[in-house]
Amino acid sequence: MTKLRIGVIGASGYTGADLIRLAAAHPNIEIGPLAAGAHAGQTLAEVFPHLGRVEAPTLTRAEETDWRGCDAVFSGLPHGAAQDIIKSLPEDLRVIDMSADFRLRDASVYEQWYGRAHEAQDLLAEAVYGLTEFYGPEIAEARLVACPGCYPTAVLLALLPLLSAGLIVADDIIIDAKSGISGAGRALKQNTLFAEAGEGLSPYAIGAHRHGPEIDQEISRAAGRDIVASFTPHLVPMSRGELVTCHVRLAEGVTVGDLRASLDSRYHDAAFAHLLPEGRVPATQHVRGSNHFIVNVFPDRLPGRAVVIGALDNLVKGSAGQALQNFNLMFGLPETTGLEQQPLFP
Amino acid sequence: MTKLRIGVIGASGYTGADLIRLAAAHPNIEIGPLAAGAHAGQTLAEVFPHLGRVEAPTLTRAEETDWRGCDAVFSGLPHGAAQDIIKSLPEDLRVIDMSADFRLRDASVYEQWYGRAHEAQDLLAEAVYGLTEFYGPEIAEARLVACPGCYPTAVLLALLPLLSAGLIVADDIIIDAKSGISGAGRALKQNTLFAEAGEGLSPYAIGAHRHGPEIDQEISRAAGRDIVASFTPHLVPMSRGELVTCHVRLAEGVTVGDLRASLDSRYHDAAFAHLLPEGRVPATQHVRGSNHFIVNVFPDRLPGRAVVIGALDNLVKGSAGQALQNFNLMFGLPETTGLEQQPLFP
Amino acid sequence: MTKLRIGVIGASGYTGADLIRLAAAHPNIEIGPLAAGAHAGQTLAEVFPHLGRVEAPTLTRAEETDWRGCDAVFSGLPHGAAQDIIKSLPEDLRVIDMSADFRLRDASVYEQWYGRAHEAQDLLAEAVYGLTEFYGPEIAEARLVACPGCYPTAVLLALLPLLSAGLIVADDIIIDAKSGISGAGRALKQNTLFAEAGEGLSPYAIGAHRHGPEIDQEISRAAGRDIVASFTPHLVPMSRGELVTCHVRLAEGVTVGDLRASLDSRYHDAAFAHLLPEGRVPATQHVRGSNHFIVNVFPDRLPGRAVVIGALDNLVKGSAGQALQNFNLMFGLPETTGLEQQPLFP
Amino acid sequence: MTKLRIGVIGASGYTGADLIRLAAAHPNIEIGPLAAGAHAGQTLAEVFPHLGRVEAPTLTRAEETDWRGCDAVFSGLPHGAAQDIIKSLPEDLRVIDMSADFRLRDASVYEQWYGRAHEAQDLLAEAVYGLTEFYGPEIAEARLVACPGCYPTAVLLALLPLLSAGLIVADDIIIDAKSGISGAGRALKQNTLFAEAGEGLSPYAIGAHRHGPEIDQEISRAAGRDIVASFTPHLVPMSRGELVTCHVRLAEGVTVGDLRASLDSRYHDAAFAHLLPEGRVPATQHVRGSNHFIVNVFPDRLPGRAVVIGALDNLVKGSAGQALQNFNLMFGLPETTGLEQQPLFP
Repeated sequence: MTKLRIGVIGASGYTGADLIRLAAAHPNIEIGPLAAGAHAGQTLAEVFPHLGRVEAPTLTRAEETDWRGCDAVFSGLPHGAAQDIIKSLPEDLRVIDMSADFRLRDASVYEQWYGRAHEAQDLLAEAVYGLTEFYGPEIAEARLVACPGCYPTAVLLALLPLLSAGLIVADDIIIDAKSGISGAGRALKQNTLFAEAGEGLSPYAIGAHRHGPEIDQEISRAAGRDIVASFTPHLVPMSRGELVTCHVRLAEGVTVGDLRASLDSRYHDAAFAHLLPEGRVPATQHVRGSNHFIVNVFPDRLPGRAVVIGALDNLVKGSAGQALQNFNLMFGLPETTGLEQQPLFP
Repeated sequence: MTKLRIGVIGASGYTGADLIRLAAAHPNIEIGPLAAGAHAGQTLAEVFPHLGRVEAPTLTRAEETDWRGCDAVFSGLPHGAAQDIIKSLPEDLRVIDMSADFRLRDASVYEQWYGRAHEAQDLLAEAVYGLTEFYGPEIAEARLVACPGCYPTAVLLALLPLLSAGLIVADDIIIDAKSGISGAGRALKQNTLFAEAGEGLSPYAIGAHRHGPEIDQEISRAAGRDIVASFTPHLVPMSRGELVTCHVRLAEGVTVGDLRASLDSRYHDAAFAHLLPEGRVPATQHVRGSNHFIVNVFPDRLPGRAVVIGALDNLVKGSAGQALQNFNLMFGLPETTGLEQQPLFP
Repeated sequence: MTKLRIGVIGASGYTGADLIRLAAAHPNIEIGPLAAGAHAGQTLAEVFPHLGRVEAPTLTRAEETDWRGCDAVFSGLPHGAAQDIIKSLPEDLRVIDMSADFRLRDASVYEQWYGRAHEAQDLLAEAVYGLTEFYGPEIAEARLVACPGCYPTAVLLALLPLLSAGLIVADDIIIDAKSGISGAGRALKQNTLFAEAGEGLSPYAIGAHRHGPEIDQEISRAAGRDIVASFTPHLVPMSRGELVTCHVRLAEGVTVGDLRASLDSRYHDAAFAHLLPEGRVPATQHVRGSNHFIVNVFPDRLPGRAVVIGALDNLVKGSAGQALQNFNLMFGLPETTGLEQQPLFP
Repeated sequence: MTKLRIGVIGASGYTGADLIRLAAAHPNIEIGPLAAGAHAGQTLAEVFPHLGRVEAPTLTRAEETDWRGCDAVFSGLPHGAAQDIIKSLPEDLRVIDMSADFRLRDASVYEQWYGRAHEAQDLLAEAVYGLTEFYGPEIAEARLVACPGCYPTAVLLALLPLLSAGLIVADDIIIDAKSGISGAGRALKQNTLFAEAGEGLSPYAIGAHRHGPEIDQEISRAAGRDIVASFTPHLVPMSRGELVTCHVRLAEGVTVGDLRASLDSRYHDAAFAHLLPEGRVPATQHVRGSNHFIVNVFPDRLPGRAVVIGALDNLVKGSAGQALQNFNLMFGLPETTGLEQQPLFP
């Protein structure tokens, strides 16, 4: 079997690590250069002891890395750093970016939310939004894929079919989102210390999270006009997992059954997006470590409303897993290659 | 200092235990009989080792307990069992019930939600709803106080002032609630095992939780007409703590500042309900183990909406602490007696 | 590729579930009948939602299950129940038992520790102890393999090479062991509720754990005479993971370096047992979800002593993973087939 | 009631915070100046939101703090910083230091383990080791009290009576210790991030922890000659709590009952140290948030050995609570003043 050689930029973060974890089990992948600024010179085992038995080269600085021979590069860098490195890569190298740098199509929106001008706008113009279940054909042809944020992935998989079909009221979408703490990354922050975040629940970035405009961009496309969603994230004392509770208003005459039928129809043959049987509640435990997204719809106590709930693993379907799913499409492999792992429970 | 002698029914559950924990530090309380069905004959130290140094009698069966000499009895029994025991108590004994049995004023609503006829309807008629900050004078005179559920306490403290003042739209209240696992009690259930609930987040009883009608009852009172709230609870991997994220629509011309001003005015002198400074986020860690409720209001991304967030400890202000706060009012003691403990963090 | 058809008895417990999780990814396995007493009639998705996409038949009662066509059966039943069912299975069916029923070679020791006579002593006589790294050839030929307990697996992999070589004093072995809560199984017990076991650490079965005599049996074999080890287990607030801290006395003239050299030599080519580089500390996080066992040796503050520390995932290398590793040997497959998953971290 | 005015240095760490939490409930304490380097200028509510309702001044830099009017100062600074500040304090100010700077009587041992010369050796000479149950009279008279480390407190309370009475073999003491993550402090470190430390267990500083020589110093005193203990700490995924499992060899002719009798006799009237009833297992859950230390003794499987297990809350009896207990002695107050809180469970 021919192997495709991949590189990873930002290999010392959690998304980089999860990408390497999955890539190590991918039958068509050979792990090539791993780049990581502060950790250059260390082995993968030193940076991530759990990956100590993966065959991989010592980490290098991105600027000094030789990408020749690579078929694709994954980037797990933070925003800003991502665009700076990616624009310097060889032009024939296909890039799957897990940062926020190429998700927002409008550079001025990017500048407003990320606090710096976008300095790779030509790349931005060609980037394809990597929500696999909705942009598959474009992803297959893309040179640069911008993988969605973890929250947007969950929200969009839950709502896009409903919005496109006009089943819910586009101006009344309230998303109450919850994430495990790995979503904040491996950088040192007081609020992600165990003693601070354990045994407690806290909302954050209320009305001001950067995934808000990203969600708006995509739901507006589906709705056919500019809309805005309410979006309130919370930090939950678990390492992995993300759950979005979407409080929606039904369009006139529409029932909860119609919503379920729409999702069923959309995802019936999907490899990684699944409508649960009626009444079964999505829980993050049930997708941990896997690339699966699960969703269900419930009647609300308030007449005319419904609750659409989706769950995924923020580091897998919310990041590295979806990146690999996109890689499979880009290189003509079956979508599920290397992603067949069952969830880890308990 | 004269001591008041109290009894506890349902002493072997978490609310019973937390009541005893707090009562042991209350300068005016002498702990009298402790009743608990299955655990009768055991010492408190055997049932709850952390209370091993509290002076208390051996547990007895409620039916065989001698309540003479008691000034008040707290009940931590499950619903159903509570009414059966409480109606058999001496008539001059003041009762503070932490179960759901006397919260719903309408016996037919009770029957619908709790699956059995109410068999102490005369007591139901005289019971006072024990939301201390709103029913203080009635509580002071009551013989039987029905302490609110943990979720309703948080929701009502967050929303009643806003509803009464007409600052939010009464027909568009969406409550996304999150609770620690002690809220499910000490009874053995598969979904509250550590290996099931740890490292995971799951919604439950979506649109069908028994605290829904209790919330409706009280917000309808404040709104002056029958209203219904959307209510979706989630189970969070922590032992204690409850957070309610209330997504509300502002009444015409009303601002987030108006909401904060209303809460500030209402709680400025309150001992246990506090509006946080502008922008500071309520988190359950910051009230753990204490009787404090904290609330704040945030602008939403969706124009015309706001997010009202409240947090408390489900076993304290959400149950045993509020029960003791009511006890203080009933016996003419300062409201804060025995409840001055600071939160435990980290 | 020809598939081997397997059945699972006790499919509704955690070891059964983890066996199914791994088997679903095994290229040579076809999942056949799943038996589980109380859950007969339910689908796998109902019993374990995280396995909802695994192709598997509805659960049946063991007594009513048709094992024809199966090449092997895995048992995840509790002790006692295991022997009753296993002795009733067709004689040509190879059995990999994850219970304690066939681990102790001496039926009288079994009776003493498990409180019932052994009622399948002919099977006991032929059972092979399934510690893969030490009994590989016997396992390959066995009809019935008794997989070791989770603690014994960790302890024996850490100590057997040292004992066999006479590097440590056999009469002074002190094992301080720690396990995640899934080790207690899915049965309902008060002490494994989240609210009880969370945010706390407790020793249990001090000096009286059933894995004690199992450890004695195997270390006595290695030492060439009857010895007893001190063994004190603790319950740790995490779902998975097991760590054994073995406090040992060095034989005369032996150094920590000698211990490391012995383990290095023993495990240099092992697929799933690994000596870490000098100074690197084994941690359960680094093997979670995988079949890997990691070990290292450290100098003690007390002269003449050393600390040997081993870590594994109690449900994988400590149970279902080792069972599958044994299955591979029994059917002539490469030892690592279906077990290549990297650990899940964070 | 006259109030004593206290100051706190290092008010922005966890031990400082817990000291303030307890002091706020102490009837004889008035909280005076709070010093904290990097956080000077912030309010207590900003640094520790859970203490937002405690009346306290804005934090100041230690060098600029006016200590006049203070009766005592508590220091929660890290070692090194503690001695630098403490030696600059007014000479008539009594000081209760929770750092490691004055625990080791021998300045050369300090230099060896803490990597810097001791620069306040005259203070070191007069400092009293603040293990309340053993040095009460000296503490009462001291100007400077050096509160023991959290691990030494647990180990010494468990073993000193046994060593003094010659009931255990002094040269064969093996301490396997486990701590919650708050023990690592509030400083930012990768290994104390939630995503790193959660769902996992790891030993650390094996044979090389700074509490080792501190334990040696005190057990040597009790044994009457220089001895060394084996000491291996582990990091447990919980915020608070510490448990020491002491594996000891019984002196000739001594029984487990003798050990229990010795501890019973020593702690029968102690306010905060308690021998549990025979067979009851100490667990950190049962002392969380309180100043209580619990201990018990169990027979080992290995003849002639026993397991002595002690548990406490590392931030309370292991630090701030013991500091306050010492303060009470120093100012002639009942030992339990302000420390009567029951443990918080669940």
